[in-house]
Amino acid sequence: MAVHRFAPTSYSNVIGTQPAVLTVASGDTIITTTLDAAGFDHEGAQRAPRGNPMTGPFSVEGAEPGDALIVTIDRMTPNRKTGWTYSPVSQQVVDPRTVADLPKSERFEWSIDAAAGTVRLIGGSARIAGWSFPLTPMIGCFGVAPERGQAISTATSGPYGGNMDYRRFAPEASIAFPVSVAGGLFFLGDGHACQGDGEIVGTGIETSFEIEFTLHLRKNAPGRWPRCETATEIITLASGRPLDQPLQFATTEMIRWIVEDLGVDAVEASHLLGQMVRYDVANVFNPAYCVACRLEKNEITSRMSLRGAP
Amino acid sequence: MAVHRFAPTSYSNVIGTQPAVLTVASGDTIITTTLDAAGFDHEGAQRAPRGNPMTGPFSVEGAEPGDALIVTIDRMTPNRKTGWTYSPVSQQVVDPRTVADLPKSERFEWSIDAAAGTVRLIGGSARIAGWSFPLTPMIGCFGVAPERGQAISTATSGPYGGNMDYRRFAPEASIAFPVSVAGGLFFLGDGHACQGDGEIVGTGIETSFEIEFTLHLRKNAPGRWPRCETATEIITLASGRPLDQPLQFATTEMIRWIVEDLGVDAVEASHLLGQMVRYDVANVFNPAYCVACRLEKNEITSRMSLRGAP
Amino acid sequence: MAVHRFAPTSYSNVIGTQPAVLTVASGDTIITTTLDAAGFDHEGAQRAPRGNPMTGPFSVEGAEPGDALIVTIDRMTPNRKTGWTYSPVSQQVVDPRTVADLPKSERFEWSIDAAAGTVRLIGGSARIAGWSFPLTPMIGCFGVAPERGQAISTATSGPYGGNMDYRRFAPEASIAFPVSVAGGLFFLGDGHACQGDGEIVGTGIETSFEIEFTLHLRKNAPGRWPRCETATEIITLASGRPLDQPLQFATTEMIRWIVEDLGVDAVEASHLLGQMVRYDVANVFNPAYCVACRLEKNEITSRMSLRGAP
Amino acid sequence: MAVHRFAPTSYSNVIGTQPAVLTVASGDTIITTTLDAAGFDHEGAQRAPRGNPMTGPFSVEGAEPGDALIVTIDRMTPNRKTGWTYSPVSQQVVDPRTVADLPKSERFEWSIDAAAGTVRLIGGSARIAGWSFPLTPMIGCFGVAPERGQAISTATSGPYGGNMDYRRFAPEASIAFPVSVAGGLFFLGDGHACQGDGEIVGTGIETSFEIEFTLHLRKNAPGRWPRCETATEIITLASGRPLDQPLQFATTEMIRWIVEDLGVDAVEASHLLGQMVRYDVANVFNPAYCVACRLEKNEITSRMSLRGAP
Repeated sequence: MAVHRFAPTSYSNVIGTQPAVLTVASGDTIITTTLDAAGFDHEGAQRAPRGNPMTGPFSVEGAEPGDALIVTIDRMTPNRKTGWTYSPVSQQVVDPRTVADLPKSERFEWSIDAAAGTVRLIGGSARIAGWSFPLTPMIGCFGVAPERGQAISTATSGPYGGNMDYRRFAPEASIAFPVSVAGGLFFLGDGHACQGDGEIVGTGIETSFEIEFTLHLRKNAPGRWPRCETATEIITLASGRPLDQPLQFATTEMIRWIVEDLGVDAVEASHLLGQMVRYDVANVFNPAYCVACRLEKNEITSRMSLRGAP
Repeated sequence: MAVHRFAPTSYSNVIGTQPAVLTVASGDTIITTTLDAAGFDHEGAQRAPRGNPMTGPFSVEGAEPGDALIVTIDRMTPNRKTGWTYSPVSQQVVDPRTVADLPKSERFEWSIDAAAGTVRLIGGSARIAGWSFPLTPMIGCFGVAPERGQAISTATSGPYGGNMDYRRFAPEASIAFPVSVAGGLFFLGDGHACQGDGEIVGTGIETSFEIEFTLHLRKNAPGRWPRCETATEIITLASGRPLDQPLQFATTEMIRWIVEDLGVDAVEASHLLGQMVRYDVANVFNPAYCVACRLEKNEITSRMSLRGAP
Repeated sequence: MAVHRFAPTSYSNVIGTQPAVLTVASGDTIITTTLDAAGFDHEGAQRAPRGNPMTGPFSVEGAEPGDALIVTIDRMTPNRKTGWTYSPVSQQVVDPRTVADLPKSERFEWSIDAAAGTVRLIGGSARIAGWSFPLTPMIGCFGVAPERGQAISTATSGPYGGNMDYRRFAPEASIAFPVSVAGGLFFLGDGHACQGDGEIVGTGIETSFEIEFTLHLRKNAPGRWPRCETATEIITLASGRPLDQPLQFATTEMIRWIVEDLGVDAVEASHLLGQMVRYDVANVFNPAYCVACRLEKNEITSRMSLRGAP
Repeated sequence: MAVHRFAPTSYSNVIGTQPAVLTVASGDTIITTTLDAAGFDHEGAQRAPRGNPMTGPFSVEGAEPGDALIVTIDRMTPNRKTGWTYSPVSQQVVDPRTVADLPKSERFEWSIDAAAGTVRLIGGSARIAGWSFPLTPMIGCFGVAPERGQAISTATSGPYGGNMDYRRFAPEASIAFPVSVAGGLFFLGDGHACQGDGEIVGTGIETSFEIEFTLHLRKNAPGRWPRCETATEIITLASGRPLDQPLQFATTEMIRWIVEDLGVDAVEASHLLGQMVRYDVANVFNPAYCVACRLEKNEITSRMSLRGAP
């Protein structure tokens, strides 16, 4: 249960099989930093090319294909006072007939007040003076090396994780990724100080972070897509296009999980999902959209767990 | 502000221009009953063909094309002790490669305990004994006569409303529909005792209801799709396929509403949506899928209203 | 085998159950005229509101739900010298990131030279002087009254036909529509002098026509979507969104047809389709997109026919 | 203009930046062999893992990011007597409600008769005895190393090419790929003896080939997606999901090409496309679907060329 402090000196714009920057044991905690999506650090210096440069990869002893690497996000602390967004909303989320009416996308700066727990646009007209939103940090892009020796751009996502941009991948959540290579090779970056559903302006409030997280190994784990557990929820997430496709994959993964952990069949799992399921549109901006399938923990679903049924 | 009790004697399986069954004034309240989706009433007798038979249409004095008809759902009381669902989940919401593994869809019966506020599957294996969900009534299908003299099956939906199957269209919500014909011609039916996101088993818990609702007219109203206001939320909803399309329409409608009521421009509206928007997958089963775009009421959004900015 | 000359005096902007304008026997031929998509006739006079006003409906003696109405397009003669289009291409067929670069859609006029068999833009810069395309008439919108008493806008399409905008629905093609109401109730209009795949500018070259067509009844016919036969091809067509959906429906309809007429099973039908199938994007503009599934007639497929296997 | 005979000894299941197996000059011709999709060679021996193992990469002297590598397929000779397919059609191309009715996919063998120019199923019931299709070779998967140091599975495709499975990428076609790394790094494999539109059974008739091709470099070339020229056609092809998306990308690429080579604006390009465009569904099976946008060569379009306007 060691705690490792790791100061990154290199970054990767793909998620793939690379030499590990640090090898840890299952149960160890790592404290490190991440750049913003454009490659800028806490001092405002660009340390890597734009496009979600990743810290890592971190290897976990004993991780093998077929296992799951479970990441618990212990803490996310913005390590500078500003972040940035784009605006207006993406052409992908408006009626095609109205796209021509939107101005070109531009960059805006935001102040981050960690003490007050808020973010606030810098500048802005009198019409929006006083608009302030809660500081709600999340990790935009993280995951493990994909199968078949692939090296995939951090713009997109897949069963291995990647640029999922899901606002519930936040402190106190644990996320399990299916391992495809020895050591797992975990990457992370692209932290957001705030983000609505869908990442519809193409960014959250992009900034650099100090992040503390813990890695656990589950041997011979059944998941095919990222699974997540929070204090109050059970979640699966998947990628694809159109939104129908990740919804299909995430629902199928949730049915598998229910069947595994509750010992029921697909019809019985459907009674639960039909009345209780919630869907989140994680992102509807990236090359692969992401949808989460979610169940609140209750008497039934609290018997489900990332580690398997108790 | 009259209260009308209306006992229906005929039902419609299309939403279109038909003679009104009752004409009321703006502000009036109507207490009536609805059949279940298969046409069965509180006594278990089939009164209309299957497929969401509608009660109505109700005409509102003075309603004209360009107005909005605002429906407040005052109360929904299940008027029998059972409802029904289908299971398993629709082939449309699972990975196509796993569809062949699912059994054929079958009908199941549920008991409704209004006093306890629960629904519970009747029968079921020991594995799911004790599975019980909260009673959360909602209207599956309602709306006003569409434009151009159309008469559209209650299986589907559009700007006029229809079979939207959205779980937040529930007691205490107010929903505004754009009027296309004189009187508006409001229809309703297809009540559910409970339903998860997406109506993914193809039904909620289908049953008959006594429903109390109030109709208000807003002259020269700007909405092009259903808009909704609850005590805590501002919502737009739209229809189409794939899910990307209703998300686009609902987002565009929300931008219009923000611009109208907050007096900001599209870039400023995007700052709000980018960080605060929530999306709900209302249904991902019907011929037209529905997505809702939602904002919690806060200092900013509480200045928005179905009736226009205060 | 009578030939009827019918001069329309009224038009419909929905396809639904209405009193027939003429009742004919199976095998009869009708010669009539159609307005252009904006409601203008051969003299340039507007006779009906814009949006594909239909000539008809024509009733066929003995047609009942479960039958098919087979329409053979015998001849299409443009009855004026000009047509019109919109330009540029629809926002729906370009990369959303480039939409803002396109100018607003505008109307353009074309001359139609029936003798030369060409269409040619009127006006236009020196850069495109001499651009001329073949005159290739087709029917954009036709079909029979839909099921359940619906009346559906001629903007869209479904199993009953409607605004399919498919360039192979042209002289010498025969198209079978599934009958839902007594008499079938056949409507037609929206002729194009030319059109590429997809109707991607939102129009063909829109003009008015004299059209000659023959109606045959097939009792107890198996089709669920429009089927078509030409001298050289066997075709099914279906509607929906995104393009994947009509492709699925059209492929499924073609498998049914192959199984019916060739007496093979689904695996055997798949051997044929896997190596020989062709898909056409009929329209990718209307509320419902249309895709055609097509097989050239060869030794195998020439045993298939709209009337059933010989 | 050298001719190189290259006998591969290693294969790659990803397309990425790797050491070249051979470096050639622009204009050189290469004669080599490809394995079938499962990694089997002309002797029926498995030489690489399944999943479209590639021959290559071949480097072209002087190729740099921003250039285009133009591949002319000179000849494809099947180098064994059999190929294989799967059947029935993919669940992705049928109505989801009918999927459960299809049997599980199974492998079938075909004989290839190069002299007769036919393919024929081996075995098969009396019902399909005599079913034979034309031998029409094509390359399923080829392209150049993608940008950003990615290494992408040969299951999918993108702007760099990859598993496009388009039946017109066949002998006598020339295809231009946008170069992202020095040398271009061209890979090829996955030859089919025959294939319908869409690759809807998940395979063509998969077999090994001797292939002769010629590589030309075009410096500072404008294409962003694969472009193709045949004796009679001008084609662009793009990837994505749903089918609407590659259709959008391919149409946009075609508009750019028309504007570049014909010197017209987007409205004028739209007059041509609106009346003359053809779309092909290249594949509707792989993780990324492919759609081709196609124009027949005529007086207007014959002024377009992969090398730029004459």
